[in-house]
Amino acid sequence: MSDTKSPALRLNGPVLLQQLRELGEIGADPVAGGRTRVALTDDEKAGRDQLVAWMRELGLDVQIDRIGNIFGTLPCAPGARDAAGAMPRPLMMGSHIDTVINAGALDGCYGVLGGLAVARAFRDAGIVPSRPITVVAFTNEEGARFHPDMMGSLVHAGGLPLDEALDAIGTDGARLGDELVRIGYAGEMAPGTLVPHEYLELHIEQGPILEAEGLEIGVVENLQGISWQQITVQGNANHAGTTPTRLRHDAGYVAAATVAELRRIAVESGTTLATVGTMQLEPGVINVIPRKAVFTVDMRDPDEQRLTQSEARLADFLTKTAAQEGVRISTQRLARFEPVMFDAELTAAIEASAKRLGLSYKRMTSGAGHDAQMIARIAPAAMIFVPSRGGISHNPREHTDDAQLVRGAEVLLDVVARRLGAGQ
Amino acid sequence: MSDTKSPALRLNGPVLLQQLRELGEIGADPVAGGRTRVALTDDEKAGRDQLVAWMRELGLDVQIDRIGNIFGTLPCAPGARDAAGAMPRPLMMGSHIDTVINAGALDGCYGVLGGLAVARAFRDAGIVPSRPITVVAFTNEEGARFHPDMMGSLVHAGGLPLDEALDAIGTDGARLGDELVRIGYAGEMAPGTLVPHEYLELHIEQGPILEAEGLEIGVVENLQGISWQQITVQGNANHAGTTPTRLRHDAGYVAAATVAELRRIAVESGTTLATVGTMQLEPGVINVIPRKAVFTVDMRDPDEQRLTQSEARLADFLTKTAAQEGVRISTQRLARFEPVMFDAELTAAIEASAKRLGLSYKRMTSGAGHDAQMIARIAPAAMIFVPSRGGISHNPREHTDDAQLVRGAEVLLDVVARRLGAGQ
Repeated sequence: MSDTKSPALRLNGPVLLQQLRELGEIGADPVAGGRTRVALTDDEKAGRDQLVAWMRELGLDVQIDRIGNIFGTLPCAPGARDAAGAMPRPLMMGSHIDTVINAGALDGCYGVLGGLAVARAFRDAGIVPSRPITVVAFTNEEGARFHPDMMGSLVHAGGLPLDEALDAIGTDGARLGDELVRIGYAGEMAPGTLVPHEYLELHIEQGPILEAEGLEIGVVENLQGISWQQITVQGNANHAGTTPTRLRHDAGYVAAATVAELRRIAVESGTTLATVGTMQLEPGVINVIPRKAVFTVDMRDPDEQRLTQSEARLADFLTKTAAQEGVRISTQRLARFEPVMFDAELTAAIEASAKRLGLSYKRMTSGAGHDAQMIARIAPAAMIFVPSRGGISHNPREHTDDAQLVRGAEVLLDVVARRLGAGQ
Repeated sequence: MSDTKSPALRLNGPVLLQQLRELGEIGADPVAGGRTRVALTDDEKAGRDQLVAWMRELGLDVQIDRIGNIFGTLPCAPGARDAAGAMPRPLMMGSHIDTVINAGALDGCYGVLGGLAVARAFRDAGIVPSRPITVVAFTNEEGARFHPDMMGSLVHAGGLPLDEALDAIGTDGARLGDELVRIGYAGEMAPGTLVPHEYLELHIEQGPILEAEGLEIGVVENLQGISWQQITVQGNANHAGTTPTRLRHDAGYVAAATVAELRRIAVESGTTLATVGTMQLEPGVINVIPRKAVFTVDMRDPDEQRLTQSEARLADFLTKTAAQEGVRISTQRLARFEPVMFDAELTAAIEASAKRLGLSYKRMTSGAGHDAQMIARIAPAAMIFVPSRGGISHNPREHTDDAQLVRGAEVLLDVVARRLGAGQ
């Protein structure tokens, strides 16, 4: 294999790291730690303003669409227009800059600023790309204030009508469309205008696998399907000391038995992950049998058929247990996404770049949801992961070593350069 | 068996039912339903004042001790003094008149006003008893504001130092001793002064057994031991989508598995009851593995050895599961009472009276805690139960039919009459 990377295309690691730190200061909480830039708040507006300023410094053409997605485009040579005079579709890179509460500095931001670093490498080298390079920050990926999450990329991909998204009501009662206007990011471009030729998203793993296996790069070839449900069990409240076990209709027991069954489902399936993150018991008194239990179920599997099987096994268990215990169970679907297979050609390109740069890597599944899964509906897409220390994310302790962050961006640059023929 | 009941000793059912209704009006909540007379509040003071007025109407000698227990005594004949000139110990009946929040009208009040009804029968018949008859209302049985519950009877029986009880701080920050003074019920008599010759407590079952079996009277021969624990599981919060099952330290799963194990312990023991009434998960987010779970365990068994075995089985399960899941578990004991065996002679007397009055009955265990279990430390004690509709208590829907309430009090009167030789 020859060295095919242009010596002129060089990733400026220090600037990337400096921008990650600077963006991470916006919304920082000196007491609780981390930073909070929940979508369409004043702090997130400040983050958007900084990003737009950096895009303009690089001479990118900044466009905002009606859901607030920010696109910064490095144009290609005018001669690249097709026969009809249209510009080629852009090679797009990006992620999001909104955060959860008390977040780390890397989730999302690394993909956006990594994209900027690639554009910067082209600028610094004076190379005009063969097709436009667009860096995007999608609106409201986290869903911490407005549902659904991954909203900007979902609207961009045509999966959610714009008006419905604009009418989303936040946890604070605010309407999303009004908040976009308030912070000055209700753009004029129709969502979906900029359909990517290909889409690449650089991201921290947010899981423990790369670190545990001592690897530097994750070549993300697919993304798990996600099933979110809220389950409500209605039993009878009765005295803990006087109600024989056989006469109980214990909503809390049924909820707990379901959590235990979900662990069995996960272990026996081999691929399904199942998590119960929330549970409320009513009335919540030490000597009263719970009359009501409300809990959530998060199930994931990279294989749609196995995810469906695990959902069915859960439903069977609920039906059987409801009858045994004499309780009523209702289930509300909160979210459901089928697994996503990323583009084989793009993942092969990522693997080749990791190899070429002498980095250790593995092909892997993304456990978390990402904007790339929405964009995969309209264009070839793939993702590049770098390790997360301890698998920790959505937490001030989220961390990836600087050298690993730079290596991930170098892989992204190498892939882009080769896709655009600039490195050959 | 001859008819040994004096024709002159007659239970006045209408007055008993009227007093239950009147006392039940004090602290009534017309919106939420039920009534709230939490210990040593203004509403409970109003209930105490009403009770004392009724005692005085019957010519009872009212005494208040330093923990606020109210005693109303119908004296015996002066000639009943012993050789040393001391009056015989009283036959004592009673319970409590404090309530939980939005309570029924019967829990506790029925035992106190049933005792008054017995004293009234003696007064109405003009019979002077062979030993004093004392009706008692113990302070703070419910423990809704001040811990521990069953406090007045526990202090009376010498199981809790007076000063410690007076220093109890309520859920509202008030000191119990100060509240007693404020409402005018800090009496002067030393606790434990009036040691009963025998103690009888009439109470609603607060459980479903009598109703389910179509029986009128419960002859309570023992009271379950109670073990209350709070268990804290400390795991690691991690992303629900990216953390393989084998790498999880899921505090919520461990809590749920413990609830499921407690059901197995209950079923396999045959006698242990186990309830988890409260559970909190942290951080409580749908896609985050819980880092912390806090839950309570209420275990009861009429047999001390089996209760200890069930506690040990729970402890073993926690140790084993903590190691398997890689979590830390700590256990805090909140309360522990050994089972109480009531007095065999008194329970036989209750059974005989139920039979004599032609009532259906069964010997049974009290699942709930009662003042009688404390008084059993210092005197022969027993309890009489009447059915609770649906087993419901601590709730505005608590209900026992009037006819059943009257029959229970008639059993109490018959037992007292025979213990005092007045019915023969």
